[in-house]
Amino acid sequence: METYDVIIIGAGPAGYTAGIYATRFGLRALIIGKEPGGLANEAYEIDNYPGFAPISGIELMTKFKEQAEALGAGLVPFADADEIERKREGFVVKTADGKTYGGKAVILAMGSKKRKLEIPGEETFRGKGVAYCATCDAAFYKDKTVAVVGGGNSAVRAALLLTEHAKKVYLVYRKAKENMRAMPSVVKKAENNKKIEMIFRAAPKEILGSDKLETVVFEQNGKGLHLKVDGLFVEIGRIPETGIAKKLGVALDEKGNINVRKDMSTSVEGVFAAGDITNGSNGMEQIVTACAEGAIASETAYNYIKK
Amino acid sequence: METYDVIIIGAGPAGYTAGIYATRFGLRALIIGKEPGGLANEAYEIDNYPGFAPISGIELMTKFKEQAEALGAGLVPFADADEIERKREGFVVKTADGKTYGGKAVILAMGSKKRKLEIPGEETFRGKGVAYCATCDAAFYKDKTVAVVGGGNSAVRAALLLTEHAKKVYLVYRKAKENMRAMPSVVKKAENNKKIEMIFRAAPKEILGSDKLETVVFEQNGKGLHLKVDGLFVEIGRIPETGIAKKLGVALDEKGNINVRKDMSTSVEGVFAAGDITNGSNGMEQIVTACAEGAIASETAYNYIKK
Repeated sequence: METYDVIIIGAGPAGYTAGIYATRFGLRALIIGKEPGGLANEAYEIDNYPGFAPISGIELMTKFKEQAEALGAGLVPFADADEIERKREGFVVKTADGKTYGGKAVILAMGSKKRKLEIPGEETFRGKGVAYCATCDAAFYKDKTVAVVGGGNSAVRAALLLTEHAKKVYLVYRKAKENMRAMPSVVKKAENNKKIEMIFRAAPKEILGSDKLETVVFEQNGKGLHLKVDGLFVEIGRIPETGIAKKLGVALDEKGNINVRKDMSTSVEGVFAAGDITNGSNGMEQIVTACAEGAIASETAYNYIKK
Repeated sequence: METYDVIIIGAGPAGYTAGIYATRFGLRALIIGKEPGGLANEAYEIDNYPGFAPISGIELMTKFKEQAEALGAGLVPFADADEIERKREGFVVKTADGKTYGGKAVILAMGSKKRKLEIPGEETFRGKGVAYCATCDAAFYKDKTVAVVGGGNSAVRAALLLTEHAKKVYLVYRKAKENMRAMPSVVKKAENNKKIEMIFRAAPKEILGSDKLETVVFEQNGKGLHLKVDGLFVEIGRIPETGIAKKLGVALDEKGNINVRKDMSTSVEGVFAAGDITNGSNGMEQIVTACAEGAIASETAYNYIKK
């Protein structure tokens, strides 16, 4: 079994940065990544990551990967870590292909998945009008018409943010107004915003277009509702990838994210976490905040190992 | 008077990122920066900022600046904000040249200065052997001999980190061992490390060299002590630039940093802070952690302004 100081699970912004910092702390680090690049790969154009004028998610993640490897971090790409065993001295991580890797500490950086609508056209027009991050992509819809699907805080906040750029924003929720999970104060702001039109009891059914998204079809009161829009923001929540963390006994918060302290330590000694999978960074899920958490997690792991 | 949604004071990593994010939130943002680039300019070679294989601090900060400006943030470079006045509606920032700028919210990102030894040769050999950040530069001293000056946690931790790369590390403190401010557990680790030689009651007097640093001269018991080293790490603390923050009544912590909540808000409503000037990011003072704080501060300022 190969052994390391720290095993980082997840090869997105948090995992790569944890790898970069771990090597700078003189640790032998291995990154095991099921989907190298992670959710960041989905961003067609990133212009809020400091240092890069527009860059694609894939390009940026390739740079992260090359940097982590150049500095000496090991990488096992496309490997699915499906179990972490606690031993007297450290941890053993098992991947789905039966391999095992030993580490004195573990950093969990498996990220999360945006919940999808799972309707026809969603995959076809992803990045061509279908978006999952208003903070990232709102500014690309200047003077355009967009729809946001969802009824929680993130959906209403996305709609509000989009009004800073778009000329018209539909906020579409599948249930009634009184069922919205968003805070009343936030909903009230959306109601008072002239650019926002709220549509209730409408369920998304299909996304149509040619080169890019053109129409979203909803079902409302048994009838079809066709919205002609330039963009559709899907804000129906995300699913943190905490499967192996739960098996290991790592405590989650009420939203299912890993509960981290300021130093990115978790409820299990020797296990740290970083990125979208945690409840750090005041809930902001950005590449740069995930990176910062990865850096902090590596420093804490370093102090833990050298203790 | 020019008015903005948010005025960001400080044009280092935190300030520029706050500017980048503020524009993405649709805010009119102005960055007032006394020293564009800030402390990051001092880094000769940065290889732990994710996305860039070695880059100089100045180059990276130029990219940050260009990106913030391209996205629409205003920048007043080389202007010294020397007062912030609270008005009924927001704030007025005055610069030393007598100009005033109005903002609904303020983000303080003035950073900090590394405390200098203030001895002959320190300026001459800065970046040529004289370093102020072991986390950044330790790996450049592989198999070399270095000295660390200081007696606090950061000095001892720097010495320990340097042993991961250097072959020999002097830890030099001007007072006696019992006067060290570092935690005993950390000091003990240094004592047990064979690569570290601790020298007490030695005060740095002069730095000598030709193209780069060669010898550091200390005074010990009235005599000269010459240490031949490849690098000197100055770890005698840093000074957060909190002058105008204090005048505004922003609460500091016991170390003199601005006390921030998880959302980067401060004790004064409408005033947020980010970067080295705060006690956020578990005390880590890295470009990427400063950036993350800037992003979070802008989101919180956005929510505050839109409230």
